[in-house]
Amino acid sequence: MDVDVVVIGAGPAGENVAGRAVRGGLSAAVVEEHLAGGECSYYACIPSKALLRPMELAAEVSRVPGLSTGPVDVAAVLARRDEAISGLDDSGQVEWVEKLPAALVRGRGRLTGPREVEVTAADGTVTRLRARHAVVLATGSVPVVPGIPGLAQARPWFNREATTVRQVPERLVVLGGGVVACEMAQALHALGARETTLLVRGGLLGRMEPFAGELLADSLRKSGIDLRTGVSVERVERPVDGGPVTVRLSDGSAVEADELLVATGREAAVGDVGLESVGLAAEGPVEVDDSMRVPGFDWLYAVGDVNGRNLLTHMGKYQARVCGDVIVARAAGEPDDGPALRDSADGRGAPQVVFTDPQAASVGLTAQAARDQGMDVRVVDYDMASVAGAYLLGDGYVGRARMVVDESRKVPVGVTFVGPGVGELLHAATIAVTAEVPLEKLWHAVPSFPAVSEVWLRLLEEYGL
Amino acid sequence: MDVDVVVIGAGPAGENVAGRAVRGGLSAAVVEEHLAGGECSYYACIPSKALLRPMELAAEVSRVPGLSTGPVDVAAVLARRDEAISGLDDSGQVEWVEKLPAALVRGRGRLTGPREVEVTAADGTVTRLRARHAVVLATGSVPVVPGIPGLAQARPWFNREATTVRQVPERLVVLGGGVVACEMAQALHALGARETTLLVRGGLLGRMEPFAGELLADSLRKSGIDLRTGVSVERVERPVDGGPVTVRLSDGSAVEADELLVATGREAAVGDVGLESVGLAAEGPVEVDDSMRVPGFDWLYAVGDVNGRNLLTHMGKYQARVCGDVIVARAAGEPDDGPALRDSADGRGAPQVVFTDPQAASVGLTAQAARDQGMDVRVVDYDMASVAGAYLLGDGYVGRARMVVDESRKVPVGVTFVGPGVGELLHAATIAVTAEVPLEKLWHAVPSFPAVSEVWLRLLEEYGL
Repeated sequence: MDVDVVVIGAGPAGENVAGRAVRGGLSAAVVEEHLAGGECSYYACIPSKALLRPMELAAEVSRVPGLSTGPVDVAAVLARRDEAISGLDDSGQVEWVEKLPAALVRGRGRLTGPREVEVTAADGTVTRLRARHAVVLATGSVPVVPGIPGLAQARPWFNREATTVRQVPERLVVLGGGVVACEMAQALHALGARETTLLVRGGLLGRMEPFAGELLADSLRKSGIDLRTGVSVERVERPVDGGPVTVRLSDGSAVEADELLVATGREAAVGDVGLESVGLAAEGPVEVDDSMRVPGFDWLYAVGDVNGRNLLTHMGKYQARVCGDVIVARAAGEPDDGPALRDSADGRGAPQVVFTDPQAASVGLTAQAARDQGMDVRVVDYDMASVAGAYLLGDGYVGRARMVVDESRKVPVGVTFVGPGVGELLHAATIAVTAEVPLEKLWHAVPSFPAVSEVWLRLLEEYGL
Repeated sequence: MDVDVVVIGAGPAGENVAGRAVRGGLSAAVVEEHLAGGECSYYACIPSKALLRPMELAAEVSRVPGLSTGPVDVAAVLARRDEAISGLDDSGQVEWVEKLPAALVRGRGRLTGPREVEVTAADGTVTRLRARHAVVLATGSVPVVPGIPGLAQARPWFNREATTVRQVPERLVVLGGGVVACEMAQALHALGARETTLLVRGGLLGRMEPFAGELLADSLRKSGIDLRTGVSVERVERPVDGGPVTVRLSDGSAVEADELLVATGREAAVGDVGLESVGLAAEGPVEVDDSMRVPGFDWLYAVGDVNGRNLLTHMGKYQARVCGDVIVARAAGEPDDGPALRDSADGRGAPQVVFTDPQAASVGLTAQAARDQGMDVRVVDYDMASVAGAYLLGDGYVGRARMVVDESRKVPVGVTFVGPGVGELLHAATIAVTAEVPLEKLWHAVPSFPAVSEVWLRLLEEYGL
């Protein structure tokens, strides 16, 4: 089959490339081995948030005098999670792709040469696709499996098993300190994993400002999760398949649990994509320029987790919009360097929300990262509990905000919020950082009282405005 | 007593003028007849939000399968409201003023001539204040009392009685369709006013986009509130003091209730301020220029509700920052026309959040207002329920977003969100509208997935980016 654009991977990034390319008048085929909709829709963002929502809301209620919740109906929560992931049925997503219209080709897609993709279906059928204009890799990422003796044999859970859980284990050990580890430890603990142990080599949420991980650690411990930071795992033992698993630590102690969740990071899914057939290294993320094109090729692109820029659904979709549009422009021989045709957001520090209690949300650079770039940095912190709107949300609100200012330009280059519900505060920061709105102008953007967003005023006052 | 700046009124606006003036090296006296902290702290924003929070949260819980709330403990809710308003004790606020440091002078403040203010305390003691640089009126506003026969004699509630309620009436009639009417009808209904009738001459939330009032009306009706729009009241009867009150409508029908709340707007509190002593009209808001100064005077300013610009706490505080800073600049003989010394926000359309369920939040111009100004307007609407983040908040999310774009500049000039919890989404819009961030730049401000803020991406996609 000949087509203008072949996209390998029908996750959010791949789907968006196809959508933009078709909108621009090109034909597209999308190759998917597993489920159209990708990791995010079935095994990551969506189910994790469905599992976290009752926990988050119960925590909010617990802070409001006069209101109380009954016990969580775990079966109902899991049923809504199933609804959210469409019972792992991707027909809705398939319909979306086909309506673009674009062809959805089921099977494993591999590059076999310039502009050539071979798709092997589950039944062994092979389809050959030729791309007139572009091949886009959007294969996503897979969990990192740490090289711990006994780990692989213990059949640990990764994000897929955790987010599609049917029977919450009573005793759970989680390895990792990033988003998946923190979110799933908290969700599963709230849903019945009474003994939840979180083992982290460093601290939590290591890519954010240090206080984000610290405030989250306090909250996890307070809720009864056994959080152990700065530990390393020596060995994992699971003598009986399906039986208890024992995690042995370097300090000689051990933790026994019913399941082990490994969430120690993700890496580009390039294992069987055929990169070597076009002369590329068969490992590591596929590096791209700001138009999402692989240097040295005029037809090969990579978007989403597979290019390693920022492993976040929304950034993958953003890259996909850039990529689809630039392919259209180049196919038409039009100028390909307009502002919408370059990724100018990933490099600033992508926005991210961690949906734990408290939530952690950040965009741009941490203070340290800004200093490391040689910026003249001023850091402004504010205790979010001092904002009237936070007090009105409930008793004992704990949170903190930080704005990192580039003093040479008086522009915020990084903002972090930690606290219940701060996820929706982030987009204001994303606009300010991305559009480089100077403090002098932010001063006239008046936060509505008594919203928690009043923290913006406090940060500017703290700065000295 | 001679002082640099005399501020009449210790509400949020007055306090902030004093704070900025003192920070700039001036001395200040603040005159307050009732409670330091003002209407907002004791009788408006703060107690209303404390009363609304359990209702809002219970509504959120009702949309999340697997979680449920028990009955609301009304006494506990009222107790937290009392805590929020410090039991009508203003010593915390007095301390704040005195620590600036500024003098707090208790009593009724009146202008008696240029730069002269006379303060009459409750015991009749009179203090004369002379301002070296400025007198600032920050007397706030009072409820409008409609000229309905029998209304005044029926001793209706206004915002003060409603927000400090001790015994929730079983049957409540509310007159009005603005923020106070909608918020308090919903709060008191949830706290026990089983028969709540809301009588509105026009529609609800008349200053916002029409869909805001429409979606709120649907929600009020669904919750069991008897909302009657387009009605007018002919007469009010309350034959026995403290007994039932009957509201007779022009269509011949009548509503009987235990209490009547009148929330038909507010007007500048200039009744006994001594405006005529300096040659000003003794009624209507005190008009000011963008430095908050009254035209024709070099020493008289007015901030907050009393100047009639926008009757919102946060805008009053914003005006107060401008005013305090400009007084400092002028006292020092420094340039008084820097960007921080002019109110450039009120004229754009102030941000406002209505804390009902659903919340309604808007900033800038409505589509109609923009057209009325002669702008070449493009309106983009989006159903917020279609955002993944909204679905993840719960079942049956109802909401809508609108962005009004000035096509000549490709800049958003107005944004409205309606939906549960949208209040914290507003500040992103406030920054975009205030800093005039063009759509081309907003395109690179990527909303974090799956936050409700993703509606920004959808609006831009709908626009055609």
